[in-house]
Amino acid sequence: MSLSVTILGSSGALPQHGRFTSAQWIDVQGTSLLIDCGEGAQMQIKKYDISLARLDYIFISHLHGDHYLGLLGLIFTLHLQKRTRPLHIFGMQGLDEIISIQLKYSKSNLHFPLQFSCLNPHAPTLILDHEKFTVTSFPLTHKIPTCGFLIREKPKPLGIDKAKLTEKISLQAIAKFKQRQDYVTDNGELLAYKQYTLPPKKTFSYAYCSDTAWDPNIVFVIKEVDLLYHESTFLQTDIAKAEETMHSTAKQAALIAREAQVTKLLLGHFSARYKDLNELLAEAQEIFPDSALACEGNIFTLTE
Amino acid sequence: MSLSVTILGSSGALPQHGRFTSAQWIDVQGTSLLIDCGEGAQMQIKKYDISLARLDYIFISHLHGDHYLGLLGLIFTLHLQKRTRPLHIFGMQGLDEIISIQLKYSKSNLHFPLQFSCLNPHAPTLILDHEKFTVTSFPLTHKIPTCGFLIREKPKPLGIDKAKLTEKISLQAIAKFKQRQDYVTDNGELLAYKQYTLPPKKTFSYAYCSDTAWDPNIVFVIKEVDLLYHESTFLQTDIAKAEETMHSTAKQAALIAREAQVTKLLLGHFSARYKDLNELLAEAQEIFPDSALACEGNIFTLTE
Repeated sequence: MSLSVTILGSSGALPQHGRFTSAQWIDVQGTSLLIDCGEGAQMQIKKYDISLARLDYIFISHLHGDHYLGLLGLIFTLHLQKRTRPLHIFGMQGLDEIISIQLKYSKSNLHFPLQFSCLNPHAPTLILDHEKFTVTSFPLTHKIPTCGFLIREKPKPLGIDKAKLTEKISLQAIAKFKQRQDYVTDNGELLAYKQYTLPPKKTFSYAYCSDTAWDPNIVFVIKEVDLLYHESTFLQTDIAKAEETMHSTAKQAALIAREAQVTKLLLGHFSARYKDLNELLAEAQEIFPDSALACEGNIFTLTE
Repeated sequence: MSLSVTILGSSGALPQHGRFTSAQWIDVQGTSLLIDCGEGAQMQIKKYDISLARLDYIFISHLHGDHYLGLLGLIFTLHLQKRTRPLHIFGMQGLDEIISIQLKYSKSNLHFPLQFSCLNPHAPTLILDHEKFTVTSFPLTHKIPTCGFLIREKPKPLGIDKAKLTEKISLQAIAKFKQRQDYVTDNGELLAYKQYTLPPKKTFSYAYCSDTAWDPNIVFVIKEVDLLYHESTFLQTDIAKAEETMHSTAKQAALIAREAQVTKLLLGHFSARYKDLNELLAEAQEIFPDSALACEGNIFTLTE
């Protein structure tokens, strides 16, 4: 598996109809990320049998409570579980203060280092350059500073054409070939990697856009991603409410998906006013057929 | 109904086995109180069909996350529900700062006044003198400043002995009698309330003690309450762990209940290490037979 997204919460600000506030668990080639961490996220992680201990990075889009109020509970649980590995949190300026003050009053000396990086709400910014993928934050349009996140896998190793392998091809040579490097044998013979390799597996990309008003400026950042999560808090009939609260409608999410030529669109951050979500889905599918509801427990996997 | 306690969370610091962290909804003669507000409390309130809008007062025992991390979510939800009535929160020094900083960064101008009163962690203190009941905070023994709460109904109006009523007894006279006052009729006749009244209904009391190490000093405060909630995080076999973490065992909770001559004991704040709680119950009942587990959704009612 290459990249997978598990939905932990699909609700807008008011948790209703059994829905939880925003949180998504992402696995990218063995590394685990959490995007947003609404109240109860740690319980959802447990419910879906995910190992919290595997978590490496947390990204918090903005400082509205429905996107981060589960964070301290999760941190305290990792502490009680005796985590020692560092945990890296990316969030808006102020989140570090919110965390620190609560650690202070609870007199918690965490067993693990908590690293904090401030997001730049003004321009797309590479915030994580991992061996296997990158994460870029980019500004969204909301009532307070808010960032979306783009996860992009790095080019993968070349495949090895096993039919071409002979005894003289050592494991060291194969390792070089995968990295697009030729290999010189002990006898001085040059083995060109192109002769022994197949094209690499496809790299995938995922973009998370929540919360945001209609904002076509994000299209150039999320262009042609494989999977786009775009908030769709309201139906188009409630466009006035969407504009007032700086959220999007399902139609607007679909228009962004179409304009950005993404492969698949996920809808989420549903207003409490809709118990049945099918109308939201239908509205999006009319414009962008490959749309889906991103509901609690759903797993969306990108793999060849 | 006189006084009722609905358990919203029975878990110790680590929410496990489907249990939620500490929170209890109390109704006292039409007034609604919340004691502690662990993560997910607002979802539990909804689950048990309680009207959040009815909430009048919140009491937070101490600043460990499992006792207050649901507070901000609940406040934001009341804000989104357009509450305008004041909400009064009692908590340890620092909680006001924790609330303020989060309101600041989310740029939330609440639609309702939030009143905050600091608890005194050093001595029993009358913190709320309501028309129908009082709330007294008192120090517990824990790693950080912590208070328990004692809710005591005020003497109730006298009953009216309907057999004694005649036409000359006006509604105004009856209202006076209930308040232990005589009444003078327009003709100057003195009607002595004692002639027309029955004893008042019983007044009830409830004490909440969590979190705390074994502390016999609390006995004089909670003496003879009708219902005592005393944390029982551990079994007596784990007494070392209880002492290290400044929590109590089920046996210790029962000893306190017996010493204080309370009517009924509720056990809660269970460690994640116990999936089955019957051993904790049995341990307490051996010393104090009228002990019960205080689990999610349980309602304990005090009424005549």
